[in-house]
Amino acid sequence: MRYEARLQELGLTLPPAPKPAGVYRPLIVVGHMAYLSGHGPLLPDGSLLVGCVGREVDQAAGYAAARQTGLAMLATLRRGLGSLDRVERVVKVFGMVNSVAEFTQQPAVINGCSELFAEVFGSENGVGARSAIGVVSLPGGMTVEIEAVFELRVTGAAAAG
Amino acid sequence: MRYEARLQELGLTLPPAPKPAGVYRPLIVVGHMAYLSGHGPLLPDGSLLVGCVGREVDQAAGYAAARQTGLAMLATLRRGLGSLDRVERVVKVFGMVNSVAEFTQQPAVINGCSELFAEVFGSENGVGARSAIGVVSLPGGMTVEIEAVFELRVTGAAAAG
Amino acid sequence: MRYEARLQELGLTLPPAPKPAGVYRPLIVVGHMAYLSGHGPLLPDGSLLVGCVGREVDQAAGYAAARQTGLAMLATLRRGLGSLDRVERVVKVFGMVNSVAEFTQQPAVINGCSELFAEVFGSENGVGARSAIGVVSLPGGMTVEIEAVFELRVTGAAAAG
Repeated sequence: MRYEARLQELGLTLPPAPKPAGVYRPLIVVGHMAYLSGHGPLLPDGSLLVGCVGREVDQAAGYAAARQTGLAMLATLRRGLGSLDRVERVVKVFGMVNSVAEFTQQPAVINGCSELFAEVFGSENGVGARSAIGVVSLPGGMTVEIEAVFELRVTGAAAAG
Repeated sequence: MRYEARLQELGLTLPPAPKPAGVYRPLIVVGHMAYLSGHGPLLPDGSLLVGCVGREVDQAAGYAAARQTGLAMLATLRRGLGSLDRVERVVKVFGMVNSVAEFTQQPAVINGCSELFAEVFGSENGVGARSAIGVVSLPGGMTVEIEAVFELRVTGAAAAG
Repeated sequence: MRYEARLQELGLTLPPAPKPAGVYRPLIVVGHMAYLSGHGPLLPDGSLLVGCVGREVDQAAGYAAARQTGLAMLATLRRGLGSLDRVERVVKVFGMVNSVAEFTQQPAVINGCSELFAEVFGSENGVGARSAIGVVSLPGGMTVEIEAVFELRVTGAAAAG
């Protein structure tokens, strides 16, 4: 289909798909639903964007971290599914922002990921349900952690399976 | 069916269905499952109940905020589904309470939403799985944020679709 | 099948299945998916392991609390399903660690639960998607709270239902 082509058209490069940092899998598929583990803002060199929004980093850095996290999620989807073209739609995004108590713009931060998904999958299929919250600490001190549920396309083979 | 009638019987008025505060949809339906985005305690005038439990507001205010959030979730369900009567049951509620570290009665706060759902959908279908946690910050400083998954009734048309 | 036998082989004893601490059910089954409410580190005497990691307790205590929480989740599954042998696989685990801002090893803590599931359900079916985060407060001051989604085996009767 179209999402791999769209990614290329946008000039986006995915980081290497992240390896699990614990006893879990990055992606589990049950029927036509794909469950993505919590992802972080993984850079091509394997490091993570770190820092608490409102203490070490600002809102713009949080937004950039959320977008980078979205790219890592796409890398996991591509590796696990073979191609982004198997995606039907974004169902749900859960975005957790490493925040001080005084920072309350978590939706604007998580938009970094959500706008990426809307660019790649379109304004209909790329925009799902969402929650955005502030949390006191994230693994390795990373700035955001985002998990998601995607619906997959029902192919002829899968429908018959 | 019965849930719209029950709402009227209880004398409950729903606030206007909330508009998204970011790049997401309030409700996504996949098959017979409805995923609700994180909702806040939206008042009829469009403002939110704000304040951290244990700092600016107390447990009773938290409970009231959770109930108000539940009403906003019902408003989203009605607008998205056409009628609350399309609901089969509450599957899962995830309740996040804006809390200081010393406040540990999150279940009593989130009961404000859960008791509303039990009143409207009944003690069997209105009571689902649930988690309740304390978080350091929520969007706009609101007191609670709650997301949920509902199962929808399988109608003749949907079953054939 | 095999999971009850495996539990016995491992010499594991489950605590009594936890009673809800609010208006919710510990387990909801929809189709072949089982949704577990947030569970805590319940001891056989009904008390919970409490304390914030980095303030009152250390990482090893967090790990032990996550393992104990996993045992409580298995107790809920057995009581709700009749037998652990009805489980097909772990789909998703969401682990929340009562943490100070400086503690960032949440994945190592939640491994206490994930390694238990891998021992009982095996390295393929027992390892699902996962998120691990730090939160400012949990109900009753408990050290971890973990919720999960499991896939259930499709039996002849269920497949025909």
